Amino acid sequence: MEIRKIYLSEDEIPRQWYNLAADLPTPMQPPVTPDGTVVTPEMLAPVFPMNLIEQEVSQERWIDIPDELLGMLCRWRPSPLKRALNLERALGTPAKIYYKDESVSPAGSHKPNSALVQAWYNKQFGIKRLTTETGAGQWGSALSFACSLVGLECKVFMVRISYDQKPYRKILMSVWGGNCVASPSSETQSGRKFLEQYPGTPGSLGMAISEAVEAAVTDKSGKTRYALGSVLNHVMLHQTIIGLEAKKQLAKVGIKKPDVVIGCAGGGSNFAGLSFPFVHDKINGADIEIIPTEPQSCPTMTKAPFAYDFGDTSGLTPLLPMFTLGHNFVPPPLHAGGLRYHGMAPLVSQALVEGLLNPLSLPQLECYAAAVQWARTEGPICAPETSHAIAAVIREALKAKEEGKEKVILFNYSGHGLLDLSGYDAYLSGKLTDYEIPEEDLNAAVKSSLENLPPVEAKKSGKW
Amino acid sequence: MEIRKIYLSEDEIPRQWYNLAADLPTPMQPPVTPDGTVVTPEMLAPVFPMNLIEQEVSQERWIDIPDELLGMLCRWRPSPLKRALNLERALGTPAKIYYKDESVSPAGSHKPNSALVQAWYNKQFGIKRLTTETGAGQWGSALSFACSLVGLECKVFMVRISYDQKPYRKILMSVWGGNCVASPSSETQSGRKFLEQYPGTPGSLGMAISEAVEAAVTDKSGKTRYALGSVLNHVMLHQTIIGLEAKKQLAKVGIKKPDVVIGCAGGGSNFAGLSFPFVHDKINGADIEIIPTEPQSCPTMTKAPFAYDFGDTSGLTPLLPMFTLGHNFVPPPLHAGGLRYHGMAPLVSQALVEGLLNPLSLPQLECYAAAVQWARTEGPICAPETSHAIAAVIREALKAKEEGKEKVILFNYSGHGLLDLSGYDAYLSGKLTDYEIPEEDLNAAVKSSLENLPPVEAKKSGKW
Repeated sequence: MEIRKIYLSEDEIPRQWYNLAADLPTPMQPPVTPDGTVVTPEMLAPVFPMNLIEQEVSQERWIDIPDELLGMLCRWRPSPLKRALNLERALGTPAKIYYKDESVSPAGSHKPNSALVQAWYNKQFGIKRLTTETGAGQWGSALSFACSLVGLECKVFMVRISYDQKPYRKILMSVWGGNCVASPSSETQSGRKFLEQYPGTPGSLGMAISEAVEAAVTDKSGKTRYALGSVLNHVMLHQTIIGLEAKKQLAKVGIKKPDVVIGCAGGGSNFAGLSFPFVHDKINGADIEIIPTEPQSCPTMTKAPFAYDFGDTSGLTPLLPMFTLGHNFVPPPLHAGGLRYHGMAPLVSQALVEGLLNPLSLPQLECYAAAVQWARTEGPICAPETSHAIAAVIREALKAKEEGKEKVILFNYSGHGLLDLSGYDAYLSGKLTDYEIPEEDLNAAVKSSLENLPPVEAKKSGKW
Repeated sequence: MEIRKIYLSEDEIPRQWYNLAADLPTPMQPPVTPDGTVVTPEMLAPVFPMNLIEQEVSQERWIDIPDELLGMLCRWRPSPLKRALNLERALGTPAKIYYKDESVSPAGSHKPNSALVQAWYNKQFGIKRLTTETGAGQWGSALSFACSLVGLECKVFMVRISYDQKPYRKILMSVWGGNCVASPSSETQSGRKFLEQYPGTPGSLGMAISEAVEAAVTDKSGKTRYALGSVLNHVMLHQTIIGLEAKKQLAKVGIKKPDVVIGCAGGGSNFAGLSFPFVHDKINGADIEIIPTEPQSCPTMTKAPFAYDFGDTSGLTPLLPMFTLGHNFVPPPLHAGGLRYHGMAPLVSQALVEGLLNPLSLPQLECYAAAVQWARTEGPICAPETSHAIAAVIREALKAKEEGKEKVILFNYSGHGLLDLSGYDAYLSGKLTDYEIPEEDLNAAVKSSLENLPPVEAKKSGKW
């Protein structure tokens, strides 16, 4: 019988995270303020605990995962590596398709890999309460789950329109003891201001971030911090456990290296998690094609410039060096909400500048077609974000078929779609369309967002 | 590090199902028609394919699982055996709590274990199309999934009120290519009659069964059959793969036998699946307490008589020998929809008559409290049905603590609750209540249901 599921036992779990910053040939450029001042660790201290800030700026290649935390991660980790044997057969491809199944976490995605770590380090630092924002609720539910395990209070500001229209992840948060309010709320000064300025507003991620950060930094006890689910270096770091496990699992079936590594990228964390350990190998000479995928209508990696831009849409965060469509860019209402982000994690962006990655943008309808083919061959219902990895996998598998090559394709199955079924319904009933974003609209968003911000040069070693 | 997840590789999957009928000391009594005629295999042939009817009436102890089918089951099987280490710690119990995680199947429960087998045998028999009914949609989605893998058409009659109010499992069915219509529909004679008699009716499982069976038996091509998700002997048989795997997995961590085996029981299939291999051991002398659990407000095993009764609520099926509250009994609107069944599988019922089982009924609020404790310790969100197993596990673990005994408790984690979050919401916002069913109401339902039906004696060997 062909083996479809490759497990690691708990005592084979990786005991260190991998930090790509140590290996990038050109050093990462620092975050700055709008006047160009370099942001120091001390400046971040009111927002994040110092132990996570240390990870954020670390240049160490390997960072130990504390034993107690490993034990907690083992609730769902190591995650299975699975082979998509039936999709292979349906495509008639000689390629072998493997995937890390990150949908097995209690919150249903890779998000808890960092949420639990952040909650744990905050707890170690003496913090009592975390705040965050959430759109559709993936990150808010992952952080609620993590706080419930670690013993922290969790406050989630959820964009009001999602709060009203997508009750399911809100219920998840309550089950895990999270305190979720619709944003803008009357609980913060910025929330009250938004409500006064825009009565009846559906809210936005930008407003929710403002509220969450305010709620963290204005707590006079000093025991509240803020947590972010993607983009930052330490979040990428925590997710590398995915790729490190995958390497051990591939070795178990005699595979020395994958030929192609694929992950969808919104802020970049699930893609980075799987791929960075393989980017390490590529830097050291391995021949691996590494493909981050994104929606054609939010083409951060394929059409945007590398620039200093705000991490959020309302200009509260430091400026990060990244590929960005501009913080004013409003992506169309894609079902893959996790991929509707204007920027890209600085670490992913720098790997891209170096030429280590081959990004691919995909239309929504092709992704849903891939998701349905997946469900009818392999069985599970994938998240709309994950469908952007699967569509690329199918393209690569068909290319391998044309070329007659027995490639090994590895991808990140970042989450299930059981709480995102309405997108499938819209697709199956013919109500979905692709979105064409005119070049001039992209350019206008970039221009309006970046015109008063300090410039940054895309520095690269020229090796790739 | 303590091991929480015990895996079997695909080549360790059991290659035979276990048939409890071969080992029950008192032979099973046959299904009959209302005039007392014994139902023969031939009489069932318009409804089920003969290869499944042979399993239904088989007295063989072990029945081979065909290799091709094993390969297909390996999409999600063997399922993991997991240890609930964090619940143990939270309870401070010396008991070790293990569970089979059946939520890992694409449909999210144990149901595909039989759905796929039934679809495969129908396909082998030359059938092109399966029909079934579904309430909330668990079984309908499992069968749609199974038919999509095997290449059969699938027609699901879904109770109208669920069709309108619970769109999510309906969408699942479409993703897997199932054709789901609200029942009563205008597609069958019985559906049209119901619509004429009761305009605007919310529908019922009874009506939906009538439509599904009619759609199967009236197809003139002879290529359509009907499929049932619980109660029948062959469904119990297919589910025994759960318990057979669990035995191998317990052996891997050096456990010769569990002390307590627990599963919730609606029609009985997930309970039977885990427990029957251990009932076998108990018959052969092992000291194991085997506990099927049920809602206090639908107390089939703890308060109902053993009698011949219809399997459905509208009196279409043969009469089955079972514990039954009467087919006229209407359980209160529990969130654990899968446990709202008036009867109990004949095989489970006969094991109960023999004294091999220790059934337990539980109030809904205690079960939701257990589900929330589970989510906040172990992490995952369980199905409301599964919470009836977890509540019993907690009782047993606390008993072991009182007694200071290191018991091994094994239970069936029959499914996740990600599509049943509204029940959690109602519980957390204090809107749920327990239901008290007065004794006289139970008696009246039994009496009105059974008064014109042939009697049956509860025969037992007296060994337990």
